[in-house]
Amino acid sequence: MIAIFNNPSRNTWAEIVTRPSIENNELETTVKNILENVKANGDKALMHYINTFDNPNQKSLTIETAEIESAEKEIATELKEAIKKAAENIRTFHSAQKEPVQVIESMQGIKCWRKSIGIEKVGLYIPGGTAPLFSTILMLAIPAQIAECKEIILCTPEGKNGKIHPAILYTANYVGIKKIYKVGGAQAIAAMAFGTETIPKTYKIFGPGNQYVTMAKMLVNKSGTAIDMPAGPSEVMIVADKTANPEFIAADMLSQCEHGNDSQAVLLTDSLEIANKTITALEMQLKALPREMFASNSLKNSKIIILNSISEQIDFMNEYAAEHLILSVENTDYFVDNVINAGSVFIGNYSPESVGDYASGTNHTLPTNGYAKAYSGVSLDSFVKKITFQHLTHEGLENIAKTVEIMAEAEQLEAHKNAVSIRLKK
Amino acid sequence: MIAIFNNPSRNTWAEIVTRPSIENNELETTVKNILENVKANGDKALMHYINTFDNPNQKSLTIETAEIESAEKEIATELKEAIKKAAENIRTFHSAQKEPVQVIESMQGIKCWRKSIGIEKVGLYIPGGTAPLFSTILMLAIPAQIAECKEIILCTPEGKNGKIHPAILYTANYVGIKKIYKVGGAQAIAAMAFGTETIPKTYKIFGPGNQYVTMAKMLVNKSGTAIDMPAGPSEVMIVADKTANPEFIAADMLSQCEHGNDSQAVLLTDSLEIANKTITALEMQLKALPREMFASNSLKNSKIIILNSISEQIDFMNEYAAEHLILSVENTDYFVDNVINAGSVFIGNYSPESVGDYASGTNHTLPTNGYAKAYSGVSLDSFVKKITFQHLTHEGLENIAKTVEIMAEAEQLEAHKNAVSIRLKK
Repeated sequence: MIAIFNNPSRNTWAEIVTRPSIENNELETTVKNILENVKANGDKALMHYINTFDNPNQKSLTIETAEIESAEKEIATELKEAIKKAAENIRTFHSAQKEPVQVIESMQGIKCWRKSIGIEKVGLYIPGGTAPLFSTILMLAIPAQIAECKEIILCTPEGKNGKIHPAILYTANYVGIKKIYKVGGAQAIAAMAFGTETIPKTYKIFGPGNQYVTMAKMLVNKSGTAIDMPAGPSEVMIVADKTANPEFIAADMLSQCEHGNDSQAVLLTDSLEIANKTITALEMQLKALPREMFASNSLKNSKIIILNSISEQIDFMNEYAAEHLILSVENTDYFVDNVINAGSVFIGNYSPESVGDYASGTNHTLPTNGYAKAYSGVSLDSFVKKITFQHLTHEGLENIAKTVEIMAEAEQLEAHKNAVSIRLKK
Repeated sequence: MIAIFNNPSRNTWAEIVTRPSIENNELETTVKNILENVKANGDKALMHYINTFDNPNQKSLTIETAEIESAEKEIATELKEAIKKAAENIRTFHSAQKEPVQVIESMQGIKCWRKSIGIEKVGLYIPGGTAPLFSTILMLAIPAQIAECKEIILCTPEGKNGKIHPAILYTANYVGIKKIYKVGGAQAIAAMAFGTETIPKTYKIFGPGNQYVTMAKMLVNKSGTAIDMPAGPSEVMIVADKTANPEFIAADMLSQCEHGNDSQAVLLTDSLEIANKTITALEMQLKALPREMFASNSLKNSKIIILNSISEQIDFMNEYAAEHLILSVENTDYFVDNVINAGSVFIGNYSPESVGDYASGTNHTLPTNGYAKAYSGVSLDSFVKKITFQHLTHEGLENIAKTVEIMAEAEQLEAHKNAVSIRLKK
């Protein structure tokens, strides 16, 4: 059911932590054609793909007010309250990320500062498919609003039943998104990158998706549109010692594995007993899941690593660079202090990943596939540019002139020097 | 010499602000081959490219201590002092970007925070070529050190004379870079992305370069290595009214244009008189430049835009999204408040771009080519990941349980729900 590695030697780690490769030339060609077609033919190309692949009867890209009103009625009061509570916590956590403008006077007469300004136009993508990911709308739209992005649009496909899931419509409307378009897949990404008659061009595109969406985001990124981050299958690593609870571990592993066929859960422990009990708990809990098929396929990608040395555990944990890292160990402080690579860290036995996925306030759009070595999760930063400003007085320029002139001359950039000199000749 | 657009109508703006396209399939194929060769053959491939294209006599990738000592002797005292002063200002400005850890208690028993952690391994690229860009070493290495990146490596090619420019060696040593490798071009980027026997693999690559370097960075980025930002030719926009000084404007335009054949300087003004006087000043100053050829080629890509309405100026300024934006206007506050898209902004008549290029403290690695609509310049942020942490007590989990359970169920993710429920059953 799940591969076990008992004290693997260091020279095997690189292979153990390698995620399945996602290179695919055929996919790239298919997606390139979609992008070019949407760029050239706009709405007409979108409707072609929608009517061919998603829904032969769909006529329009836009949402009617009646659809939103109807969604509102379909959502149970307790779900509305849960969404409200989650939104509050997400707003609290992300609002605290605002940075005040701080003016630095690096020398007398030289003032420099940075100012965060919201990216004017951002596009959010929410997939259709097997689970209606309305929580992702909260995770993306709320920081976009805190950043004061002026135009926030959302693309999501209709289901086969000709409807967008009411939880998606309700949440989008609840957080105040005014522009919702009924299109999914690579064509939705193309529309947000290039613009069509109906869908505005945006400067940065956020959100999860299948391999077509992921490839489309990579390709539009290469041609100039920013994206949230590179994507890969979701994953969790749980570091557990004898103080951990195998049933909790199994529950966390399965909550990762139910996402799809290609998720991965890794248990890193020094306790063979915990490992064995976790396997028993996995078998028990798996049977009760409605998404058992996904979970059991993903368990095949999953791993249990036994490492007896704490320092090896720390190194392995950082080498894996998990999207989600759960620390179910006695000495949490030591592990927390030594985390170098991770997307989001869940500390102790009462911090399951799912609280961060939905409602504690942290963002759930996180770097996976080892990207946590260089990338951060989505935050307020993801929705702003930090522009630097500087103002020099005549005196300030005098104070720094010689430094600039000497360096410019040494770089053989005479005109750079002259831009200073000419001002001081006056 | 330079194109003038007199009150162009809005529907022509998109074309005016479009930068020359840099798509090039042949280049992509060439660079892909280099990347694959270096990935497969490591140092051997590097030495092949070095000996074929750069220096047939180069034997080693590494620097001898003697070379650094010799560089130290070749650098004039006043240049050393200038580098020291610039480094101080850059350190002051970037140190102020450190963010204290701020713990948010979103609900009773739920604590969430972010911690900035330096990217473990970063690679800096410094081109050889026509000007020794030692200032870029300051701009990249200093924030990397403030971020506490553990491994900072630098690749730069030997010149045709078999030497790295002493200012580059001196500066790299001055800021404490211990690992300097003598290799340039796409092969240097490949080495830092994949690692070779001699050059360590890094997780994020920074620095400017020619079209081969730029393409290599785009391609390694697509396959998982982070990069500072997408690149394009350097550019400046100067917004000037009648209070501006045409000689200063011309000097700033030329300091941009001397970078290479493909730079661009844009003057945006409501004053035909300023425009005409600037043209005269450009002609005068151009003749005195050692890099006149570059500057005069780049002036051919450059533009003067006359717009009489201030609100149109603001809109055009944001539509262009300049890498460098100089505001030589009477009402600077109004313009500053309305900047949405720019890399770095220089305010008033005594703030030439070259002070920011070298020494005021702000970073000179900035988004060009219109990327300022979505990207920030390099800052301390570029060298860290911001990892989120959360710790819930049993009480905290109880407080948030219902919210998570209801949302997970609505997303049809039963195992996510169970990860909470199972903990509260105990």
